[in-house]
Amino acid sequence: MSLSFEEKSTKMGLRIEIKRVLYDGYSPYQRITVFESEEAGRVLALNGCVMVAQFDEFIYHEMLVHPAFASSHIEDVLIIGGGDGGTLREVLKHKGVRRVRLVEIDREVIEVAKRYFNMDGVFKDSRVEIIIEDGVKYVSNVNDRFDLILVDSSDPVDFAASLYSKEFIDSLRSLRKGPGIVVFQAESPFFNSDAMVSLYKNVNNLFPHSGIYWTVIPSYPGALWTFVYGGDVDIRDSNKDDVEGLKFYNKDIHRAAFLLPPFLEEMLR
Amino acid sequence: MSLSFEEKSTKMGLRIEIKRVLYDGYSPYQRITVFESEEAGRVLALNGCVMVAQFDEFIYHEMLVHPAFASSHIEDVLIIGGGDGGTLREVLKHKGVRRVRLVEIDREVIEVAKRYFNMDGVFKDSRVEIIIEDGVKYVSNVNDRFDLILVDSSDPVDFAASLYSKEFIDSLRSLRKGPGIVVFQAESPFFNSDAMVSLYKNVNNLFPHSGIYWTVIPSYPGALWTFVYGGDVDIRDSNKDDVEGLKFYNKDIHRAAFLLPPFLEEMLR
Repeated sequence: MSLSFEEKSTKMGLRIEIKRVLYDGYSPYQRITVFESEEAGRVLALNGCVMVAQFDEFIYHEMLVHPAFASSHIEDVLIIGGGDGGTLREVLKHKGVRRVRLVEIDREVIEVAKRYFNMDGVFKDSRVEIIIEDGVKYVSNVNDRFDLILVDSSDPVDFAASLYSKEFIDSLRSLRKGPGIVVFQAESPFFNSDAMVSLYKNVNNLFPHSGIYWTVIPSYPGALWTFVYGGDVDIRDSNKDDVEGLKFYNKDIHRAAFLLPPFLEEMLR
Repeated sequence: MSLSFEEKSTKMGLRIEIKRVLYDGYSPYQRITVFESEEAGRVLALNGCVMVAQFDEFIYHEMLVHPAFASSHIEDVLIIGGGDGGTLREVLKHKGVRRVRLVEIDREVIEVAKRYFNMDGVFKDSRVEIIIEDGVKYVSNVNDRFDLILVDSSDPVDFAASLYSKEFIDSLRSLRKGPGIVVFQAESPFFNSDAMVSLYKNVNNLFPHSGIYWTVIPSYPGALWTFVYGGDVDIRDSNKDDVEGLKFYNKDIHRAAFLLPPFLEEMLR
């Protein structure tokens, strides 16, 4: 018998030979699959899309989290999504962080992350509060304010689509505490340029400072991946000390990430 | 019926749904396949590995060619491999180039590139000379000298393996004309780190200046892709004007490409 994972896209995507399926189940929101593979390590797939692959997840999570910390003193963090725990793990590396609230719609993703991805300790950190709720609903009702909001969503389909809406972006504005920053994972210019461009333009219209940066995430479709940020400071100006022991992010990569290739600049015009 | 291309690696790789196979044949050296796909455009595969995919080939070819031109006046160029014509096309964009010699082992790759990838004009340029020969043999016998040598090889297996050998790298040294530069495509740190590291170290030992730069090539396994350079000038110092109308490369990307993530620096230590 040979089991293979094929990224959900039917036309083009990563195929990964499966050594062993560790978990395969349906939550009220999605199919959750965990498997072992030789070259990608342990993989978490949600609805047939790779969310976390052990061999490269450090790139996505480091690049979503650390650039914002380079320009601001951040104590209170809100994570929308991110039930796999990787974003939380990176945020907690900053000793100045006092409180992290993680709002995940799907409790079962968190359970799977604890069990199969060693995230138990991360979720148990005394600074962390987990709220199981739809991110859009949560944001429209909460009275707390945050220094940094990270939108760690899945692709803009099904229940995650509303996390790309103008209304949602607008509602995040009022959750900023003093000079606040919002960072969104923003998809690939190759296979989801519409979502990327509309997110970029909406954030650009709604925040005093905004921009985009990029990296490479081999396990995501298109590999060239973007992040959109908006806020009261420009996170390009890196002046804080780095967290030590990171594998992808450092001050050099911070600078490099904001330097854009012409075809990407053209798309954003 | 459904036809799919699957990258040769059996454990993990890109799967591309094929709309139409345009060519599939065996040369004396390899299987050559050309197909149309929806998301990757037209694709050339050699022995089951993507060499050229229309949607992202501009990144590979621009990043192999243009960084070296940023620091030196280059008139005479030698390309080892590169029968698909993409590297040649980028070199010819530099008006200062007087002569390009392309040494390709497999005549049929060039014929396929002319017929299916619009490369007829590129190969017919009056500055171009095509030599059908094994690159290693050619280099050990030639008396001409070059300002720039580009090693545009396939993966380090079968007949291409010798293009990664210390002997071959050493023989390129003597082909430099005055202050010359050699640039190698150098594989991915994720799935071919041995080849990358040994190439980097050999070039480092043999040339006064050397280094590595990186980019993202979504259709290549690992996506994070490297290039190794060696020569008499440090190509990091970009001071020449850019060619206009490029899609990936510009002065910003030149700077960004030499800024390395910690995990890559660690591998090269």
